[in-house]
Amino acid sequence: MSVFTSPSEEALTHWLEHYSIGRLVKFEGIKGGVQNSNFFVTTTFGRYVLTLFEDITRAELPYYLHLMAHLARHGLPVPAPIANRDNEYLSTLAGKPTILATRLAGISEAHPDSEHCAQIGSMLAGLHLAGRSYGRRQPNPRGTRWRKQTAALLRPCLSAEDAVLLDAELRFQEHAETDFSCLPAGAIHGDLFRDNVLWADGFIGGVIDFYFAGYDALLFDIAVTVNDWCSLPGGELDPVRAKALLVAYHTSRPFADIERVIWPTMLRAAALRFWLSRAADRALPRAGELVLTKDPDEYRNILRLRIHNAAPALP
Amino acid sequence: MSVFTSPSEEALTHWLEHYSIGRLVKFEGIKGGVQNSNFFVTTTFGRYVLTLFEDITRAELPYYLHLMAHLARHGLPVPAPIANRDNEYLSTLAGKPTILATRLAGISEAHPDSEHCAQIGSMLAGLHLAGRSYGRRQPNPRGTRWRKQTAALLRPCLSAEDAVLLDAELRFQEHAETDFSCLPAGAIHGDLFRDNVLWADGFIGGVIDFYFAGYDALLFDIAVTVNDWCSLPGGELDPVRAKALLVAYHTSRPFADIERVIWPTMLRAAALRFWLSRAADRALPRAGELVLTKDPDEYRNILRLRIHNAAPALP
Repeated sequence: MSVFTSPSEEALTHWLEHYSIGRLVKFEGIKGGVQNSNFFVTTTFGRYVLTLFEDITRAELPYYLHLMAHLARHGLPVPAPIANRDNEYLSTLAGKPTILATRLAGISEAHPDSEHCAQIGSMLAGLHLAGRSYGRRQPNPRGTRWRKQTAALLRPCLSAEDAVLLDAELRFQEHAETDFSCLPAGAIHGDLFRDNVLWADGFIGGVIDFYFAGYDALLFDIAVTVNDWCSLPGGELDPVRAKALLVAYHTSRPFADIERVIWPTMLRAAALRFWLSRAADRALPRAGELVLTKDPDEYRNILRLRIHNAAPALP
Repeated sequence: MSVFTSPSEEALTHWLEHYSIGRLVKFEGIKGGVQNSNFFVTTTFGRYVLTLFEDITRAELPYYLHLMAHLARHGLPVPAPIANRDNEYLSTLAGKPTILATRLAGISEAHPDSEHCAQIGSMLAGLHLAGRSYGRRQPNPRGTRWRKQTAALLRPCLSAEDAVLLDAELRFQEHAETDFSCLPAGAIHGDLFRDNVLWADGFIGGVIDFYFAGYDALLFDIAVTVNDWCSLPGGELDPVRAKALLVAYHTSRPFADIERVIWPTMLRAAALRFWLSRAADRALPRAGELVLTKDPDEYRNILRLRIHNAAPALP
């Protein structure tokens, strides 16, 4: 983020009277993230994170909030939304849909080794296993439908070379889509990048930012995760880290044969998703303070490499 | 506790496969407590507490487990039960009803000052406020009915002097009971002693042991808490600590006039409850390793002092 909306201390103090967590001690804005306004809030009872939603609608939020609550209830280190005295997670502050959640310990790791990747593989399998008993469904907000809409919007802004790459990859993925419906599916995180994992004492202290979660092929989530955690600086996959992540995942949630077949295609689909979203963020920026956008070229490059290089086999 | 039942490492490893929290790293028994078998369990995903219930029935447990889950959801530092892959909190290990819960940070404080007491007053009010939206009801397991049954069982074991004290106090309390039904009531902790609160960096890191919780007068919970946190070594109340606790409570959940009237009687009722339970634990001990029983004379003495000394006024 990027703080877009900041409540006054007085407004926050008053708002906290609807909760049972003591009195406000301090609050401060958090930099990082791209969609919401986030604040660390300390009360006499503990440390929490306040989130004001800038463009996720009130109708979409219950899926995310109850998913986080569900995963936290299953013992996973994710932000647990805090209920207010009306027993509700979702409230309003400064005119925006707002929640409080538990604050998790740790800092992100920009240069993961294969031990980090093994832990990430195991954690991702844990998220997928716990997600099996989550009752709500909402489509992946960055799934097939979004891809088509965004590609159409973006295409006029692309160079001739990029337009050729995009058209070819869209045709390739459209062809593969029918096979995707046979893949094991469930609640996915959808954005398990290095900056969405907090490490404390060498262990995962927190998995954050569930606002790209949705119901989709679990393999898509794995491909998103591998593309970020296991890529070398040039974008090629590091076979050692990729193997560590995939073996650890497989130990908890064994891969199906159909997943082995589709894996190389899914790595491309996951790369395409981030190329598209980053290119769209850059081409169509939003008003606000401190907005951070990420480099789309990184993922265009990763997409090209996934097309041309052989994918590491699933265990 | 006192470890009564200890599962094998193999049985625990197998049992944890029904959860989504990674693999067992280590487990060890916890000393302290009087009713259950408790273990620290560390997995690749985090640190948890395992509890095997020795004499709380499977039918009584959902009230406690959902109360803890409710309070944790409201942002209070209480153990949050962990759901298994069937989405259930309550399971079976070594033939006993068993749960896993989050492990909270901190250690108990044997010698609280008035700052500790103010935090306890505020936390107790927070528990009572969050408990208002808890939907389940179960009577206080150490309420009026239990008092009468236990007094009848215990009376033959008492000295002549203690029997006189008991008979007189039972008559006094029976007389007062009709007024109790007018008091603000809700989910109470019922046992908020110093050893059930963990402190970390000068703040409350955890409130534990909810297995005496139930629906009763909130003032009973306050009296139990004041009798433990604000007593001098001789049993008299420390007016400074009592004031700190009560003022802090009152700031969050203002006292009703009827509570001011009944307060001196309630301090006696709360003292009687612990005299009775400790005397019964000693007169009728249970089989098991390492069973710790507490001194009943401490609370007989506190009862006598609450009868003879004026109570500090509520704010």
